[in-house]
Amino acid sequence: MARAAEAAADAGLDGVLVAPGPDLVHLTGYRPTADTERLTLLVLSVEQEPVLVVPTLEAPDARQAPGAAVLTLRDWTDGKDPYAVAAPLLDVTGRFAVSDNTWAMHLLGLQQALPSTSYVSLTAALPMLRAVKDAAELARLEAAGAAADATYEEILRVRFSGRRESEVAAELAHLLTQFGHEQVDFTVVGSGPNGADPHHEAGERVIEEGDMVVLDFGGLKHGYSSDTSRTVHVGAPTAEEQRVHDVVREAQQAAFEAVRPGVACQQVDRVARAVITEAGYGERFIHRTGHGIGVITHEPPYMVEGERRPLVPGMCFSIEPGIYLPGRFGVRIEDIVTVTEDGGRRLNTTARELAVVG
Amino acid sequence: MARAAEAAADAGLDGVLVAPGPDLVHLTGYRPTADTERLTLLVLSVEQEPVLVVPTLEAPDARQAPGAAVLTLRDWTDGKDPYAVAAPLLDVTGRFAVSDNTWAMHLLGLQQALPSTSYVSLTAALPMLRAVKDAAELARLEAAGAAADATYEEILRVRFSGRRESEVAAELAHLLTQFGHEQVDFTVVGSGPNGADPHHEAGERVIEEGDMVVLDFGGLKHGYSSDTSRTVHVGAPTAEEQRVHDVVREAQQAAFEAVRPGVACQQVDRVARAVITEAGYGERFIHRTGHGIGVITHEPPYMVEGERRPLVPGMCFSIEPGIYLPGRFGVRIEDIVTVTEDGGRRLNTTARELAVVG
Repeated sequence: MARAAEAAADAGLDGVLVAPGPDLVHLTGYRPTADTERLTLLVLSVEQEPVLVVPTLEAPDARQAPGAAVLTLRDWTDGKDPYAVAAPLLDVTGRFAVSDNTWAMHLLGLQQALPSTSYVSLTAALPMLRAVKDAAELARLEAAGAAADATYEEILRVRFSGRRESEVAAELAHLLTQFGHEQVDFTVVGSGPNGADPHHEAGERVIEEGDMVVLDFGGLKHGYSSDTSRTVHVGAPTAEEQRVHDVVREAQQAAFEAVRPGVACQQVDRVARAVITEAGYGERFIHRTGHGIGVITHEPPYMVEGERRPLVPGMCFSIEPGIYLPGRFGVRIEDIVTVTEDGGRRLNTTARELAVVG
Repeated sequence: MARAAEAAADAGLDGVLVAPGPDLVHLTGYRPTADTERLTLLVLSVEQEPVLVVPTLEAPDARQAPGAAVLTLRDWTDGKDPYAVAAPLLDVTGRFAVSDNTWAMHLLGLQQALPSTSYVSLTAALPMLRAVKDAAELARLEAAGAAADATYEEILRVRFSGRRESEVAAELAHLLTQFGHEQVDFTVVGSGPNGADPHHEAGERVIEEGDMVVLDFGGLKHGYSSDTSRTVHVGAPTAEEQRVHDVVREAQQAAFEAVRPGVACQQVDRVARAVITEAGYGERFIHRTGHGIGVITHEPPYMVEGERRPLVPGMCFSIEPGIYLPGRFGVRIEDIVTVTEDGGRRLNTTARELAVVG
């Protein structure tokens, strides 16, 4: 919390405002039962000790949060104006970073209570606040990655042909839980043409012999995220399917090899994109190459054109190029990678060759 | 969507902006895989047909939403500025209602792209947009309530004494699912002193003979919420425990009897509070009496001091007074109630008397 307040001050801001969500968990360990219309807001500034504005009826829970010992609680009861409780904690002409997922109604409440304040999103103001992981965080991301890898190894043994995508997805969820995830966030099973939609989840389509199947799954283990993708084939692939898979695999490898301290994030995207463009599929790689990962699945740094910030040891992010052929099939291969002193290291280490399933 | 746009125009607004969440589901049936940093925004206005701004890689999913037939999609690809895509859809000096749970980073993005626009939260601008339920919605809320009631009837048969709160909570979750809920949102089991914390979820405390136990549980069935509370006792209650329970039950009944069209929401709160205050526990009733319910558990109308809007037939909300004695025990009794032409009707109908469990 002190580091965040200092980083804000260094960026010319008067403080950081954090609503329930990954930033609040990261800073205080506090996760309210639900994220609701009732204002909960952590106020950080170099001028004062951390204060948590909290609904009275949630105050007992907040007092038990890991970070509560260094927090002053200001509670407010139903029917009172919570923004009037928060306002005296803020400089009336201050500029504040506000956590990205803070509800708009709460930001509007603050803007109305203090019309001369201004705000910027936490990611825009301090994009790298959570980006560099310490050793304990890295250990958790590794453990989450290992559990996702174990899940992939097991799913290769199950039957795909003749079963619905949703059935295979349920097995992925079961395996993630079995390997220690406390939360399953997504289990994409995109078979045949569904694989060409990068955000297709699992549906009622019955997987058939000859299908490419994109698998993309992850969740939380000990509070840190896993996220890996592999594309498998039911039975022997055609020459074209194998070629598309080879191109994606080559792009993923090339991007991985580009990882080292000082390289711009966009360079990782460019390297992956160049391989796919060279092979004639540039128009069919319709998303960025990767996203940071930590207590939430998507966070800075983003491996995307325009992101010029350099890689720093301890950053963790996905490298997940894909090719999507509408109406036909898709391929995506994704590992979480961490930046080391002199390169990159994969936190997902299962084979990236096209696996044939039954 | 047309009704929402018209309601906004009637309220002097230039449109309604809706991010992923319950309002978007209610208006379009579209629920993206995840609510993320990528902008998805429905733009409603009487000036134009509904437009959905959506990330390119989520566009195929959005096209399959129930409301997609009447939506124009404007997609944007990673690396582009999504606010530049949304901006031309908005009056540059307009005032817009924005869904409560829209991420602050997206609101800030719009404010920056269009500095002369202004915003108000959807609930503040159009608090009653979802408050009055139609017959189909009422049927779903009834079905969700009946499933929660069946859950309560079954949980009375399980063993409480000697088991952890978390074990009983797991049974509540299992029963809700068994009775048709697709999502379990909360399963409060507050035994002994934990019951005095209204938002305590279930923990590792072992329930003992002589404990009061607050049960409060709900989730989604066919997209509509359930939410009911009963307080049970392990073995015979003391005279004081019975008295506190009687007071809460009387307060709940009195508030229910106050429900009829035209009565101010705050009156429902006042009636419940008066009974509890009269009995000497006014200071120990530390939350509002109720909240509206629909596609989300908490929504307008709120039964709280200061809410002067009148009850209207078709509104659905909780009546849930409680008494919380710190360090000792709590009691809460909650039914969902709908406003009829001449009074109120409970959607939860299990016995409200203090049940003795084993």
